[in-house]
Amino acid sequence: MSETEPGVLARVRLGHEERVVALLRERGALSRAELGALSGLSRSTLSDIAGALVARGAVVVTTPESAGRKRPPGRPAELLTLNPDTGQAIGLDFGHRRVHVAVANAAQEVIGTAALGYARTTSWQRRLEIACGLVDSLRTGLGPLHGIGVGVTGPLGRTAEQTRRVTALTDALGERFGVPVAVDNNTRLAALAEMVRGAGKGFSDVVYARLSEGVGGGIVVSGRLLRGAGGGAGEIGHIPVDPAGAPCSCGGRGCLETVASVPAVVSAAGAADLPGALEALEAGEASAVAAFDRAGRALGFALASVCNTVSPARIVVGGEVAVPRVLAAAEAALAVHLPPAQRLPAHPAALGDEVGALGALALVAHDSPLLIGYPGGTGRGEDES
Amino acid sequence: MSETEPGVLARVRLGHEERVVALLRERGALSRAELGALSGLSRSTLSDIAGALVARGAVVVTTPESAGRKRPPGRPAELLTLNPDTGQAIGLDFGHRRVHVAVANAAQEVIGTAALGYARTTSWQRRLEIACGLVDSLRTGLGPLHGIGVGVTGPLGRTAEQTRRVTALTDALGERFGVPVAVDNNTRLAALAEMVRGAGKGFSDVVYARLSEGVGGGIVVSGRLLRGAGGGAGEIGHIPVDPAGAPCSCGGRGCLETVASVPAVVSAAGAADLPGALEALEAGEASAVAAFDRAGRALGFALASVCNTVSPARIVVGGEVAVPRVLAAAEAALAVHLPPAQRLPAHPAALGDEVGALGALALVAHDSPLLIGYPGGTGRGEDES
Repeated sequence: MSETEPGVLARVRLGHEERVVALLRERGALSRAELGALSGLSRSTLSDIAGALVARGAVVVTTPESAGRKRPPGRPAELLTLNPDTGQAIGLDFGHRRVHVAVANAAQEVIGTAALGYARTTSWQRRLEIACGLVDSLRTGLGPLHGIGVGVTGPLGRTAEQTRRVTALTDALGERFGVPVAVDNNTRLAALAEMVRGAGKGFSDVVYARLSEGVGGGIVVSGRLLRGAGGGAGEIGHIPVDPAGAPCSCGGRGCLETVASVPAVVSAAGAADLPGALEALEAGEASAVAAFDRAGRALGFALASVCNTVSPARIVVGGEVAVPRVLAAAEAALAVHLPPAQRLPAHPAALGDEVGALGALALVAHDSPLLIGYPGGTGRGEDES
Repeated sequence: MSETEPGVLARVRLGHEERVVALLRERGALSRAELGALSGLSRSTLSDIAGALVARGAVVVTTPESAGRKRPPGRPAELLTLNPDTGQAIGLDFGHRRVHVAVANAAQEVIGTAALGYARTTSWQRRLEIACGLVDSLRTGLGPLHGIGVGVTGPLGRTAEQTRRVTALTDALGERFGVPVAVDNNTRLAALAEMVRGAGKGFSDVVYARLSEGVGGGIVVSGRLLRGAGGGAGEIGHIPVDPAGAPCSCGGRGCLETVASVPAVVSAAGAADLPGALEALEAGEASAVAAFDRAGRALGFALASVCNTVSPARIVVGGEVAVPRVLAAAEAALAVHLPPAQRLPAHPAALGDEVGALGALALVAHDSPLLIGYPGGTGRGEDES
C-alpha cells in the first residue's frame, strides 16, 4: 500500500505529531533528548514537529527552573510541555479509609493535592461529597477541565456489587463535572504514576508490585497500562509461587499474596502487627527473618515469571512489606531464575500515599479522547458516534 | 486540548480509517461484523469509512466463497479485504533442518508455500540461496513486494554470533529484494500466525506456548506481538515452575522447559525418543503417564502466572508434547491456581509446520511502515529520516 496510496507522508507526519503530543500529555515536561529517546524520532524530525506545535501555541518551551527541576551545570536544556493553560485534570483515589485528590494542569504539573479520612462505614454518597469538596478547594479556575481519573480498591469487575458501585460513582462524577471519567483499580494506577513521575520515570516498560494488606501490581507495556482482555492484567499477587501452597482469598492456591501480604508476613513472624514484625526483623529474631525472606523469595520467583512474560525495562516494588531485606531476597531469587542478561534490580517505589491519585491523573492523559482509534489505545471511549 | 485544537475531528477520522486498514492488513478478509468487533467502531462509522476506502480502490468487497470460507446458510455476509493486487509479502522460516517459504497478497491470502530441507551443517549463504530459489518459484508477478518477514530459531540477541548471523541474513535479503526485512524468533511468530489464521483467530489477546525440543511461546496484547524492552517477552519456557527445580540451559533454575520439553518428557518417561514415550503413554505405563502429567501440570502452573500478568482472551498450545493428556493436566492446574472467572481452556494449536512462515508473513503486516509513529507500533522502522 505504501507505494500506491496517496497522502501517506502526510499521515506519517500526523502520526509523529500525535506521538509527540501524546508523550507530553502522558509524561509532562520533557527535554528534546528525552522526547527523542521516548518517541524514537530523529533530532531533525523532532525539531520540525516541535517548532510547528510551538507556533500553534499547543506546546510551550520552559527552562528546568520553571518546571521545578535542578539546573544542570552549563547551559540549561530547554523543556517542552503542553501549554499548561489549556486545561486541567482531576485524580481521585478512594481508599478504604480516605480519599486522595490531585489536580494537574495540561503540562502534567500537579497544582494541588488534598486528602481527607472517612470511616469504613461512610456511605459512597458521603465519600463523593467529601471528594467534590476537596476538588472545589483545589480548582483555581485555570482553563477547562479535560477529564477525571478515579482509583478504587480491588480488581475491577470482580463482583457485581463493586461494578454497580463504581458505575454509580463515575456516573455521578461525570454528571457533576460534565467530562469523561476513567476508572481503574488504584494499585494498577500506582504503576502508571511510578512510570510518569516515580521510580519508573523515563521507562516505557515497567512492572510494579505492591506488598500491602493485599498484594497487587500493574504492568506498563510500551508506555500503556495493561488491562488485558479479561481485565485481570497485573494481578501479581495472584501469581502462583507454590503448587501445593495455601488457599488464597481469590479462589486459587499458593498465590504470592498468601506469603507476601502484611497479614501473611505478620502471621509467619508470630507478631501482633506489622510494626511488631518489623521490630522483630530489626532485632534479628529467626521467625521474623524467615518470614520476610520467604516473602522476598516468593516475590522474586513471581517477578521472574513476569519478566519471562513481558520482558520489562524496570521493576518497581512498593508497599509496607517492601523493606530492603525483602527486596534483597527478591533480587537473589531473580538471580536464581533468570539468565544474567535478563536480570533487573528491584527498585523501591518513589511515591507516597498520593500515588493512587497521581495515577488517576495519569489515567486521564492515557485515556485521552485524542487517542481514539489508535492501535495501542486503552480501549476506552473508542467510538464517538 | 480537544476543545481548543483545530482539526481534531479530521484526526479522529484518519485514526479510524488507519485502524480499519491496519486490521485488514493484519487479519486478512473480515466481515463488517468482525471489523466492528475488532475495531470497536460503530456500524455507521464503519460503513462510512469502508465506503470511502472501497471508492478509493484500497479495499475490495468479496463473498465468502471467493475468500475460501464455508458459505453460511442464508444470504452470505460480504467480506472486506485490502485490494489483493496492491502488493505481496514473503514469509521465510529458517529452521534447524529446513526452510519454509510462504507468499501472500495484500489481502493476506496465501498464494503459495514451499519447504526444502538442508543439513545442520549447511552454510547460511547456501540456506539463503535455497530460500531465494523457492521465493522465485512462488512469486508470480502480482503487484509490488511490500516486505519480507523472517523467522529464526532461538531468542533473538541471546548471543553475539546469532546477532551477527541474523544481521547478515536480513541485509542480504534487503539488498536482493529492495524491501524492508523484519525478523523475530519463529516461536514468537507462531503466536502471531495462530492469532491471524489459527486457533486464536478473532481474538486480540492471545497467549501461545509451544512444547517441542525446547519450550517457547509468544504473547499478543491488543493485537500486537509483544517483544518487551529486554526482547525476552513470551519466553514461557523459562517461567520458573519449581523454586528448587533442575538447572536450565538458560542459566536459570526450575524453568518450565526442564519438565515440559521433548527431552525432559522422554527422559522422565524412561523412553528412547518421543514416539516411544507416546507409545508408553498410550499403553498406560506409569512412568510415561507421570511424565506427561507432570509436564501438563507445570504448563498450567506457568500459564496461571501468564494469565495473572497479561489476562488474555485465548490460550493456544502447540508442539509435539501438547497431546490431549498434557492439555487436560494443564487445564486442571489452571483450575487450581486461577479463580473461576479468570480460567480459560487450553486450545490445541491449529497450524502445522508452516506456522513460522505464516507468522513471518503476519510480521510484515504488523511491522508495516504505515504504522510508523503510532502508539502501540512494534518499535521497528520508527524513524524514516
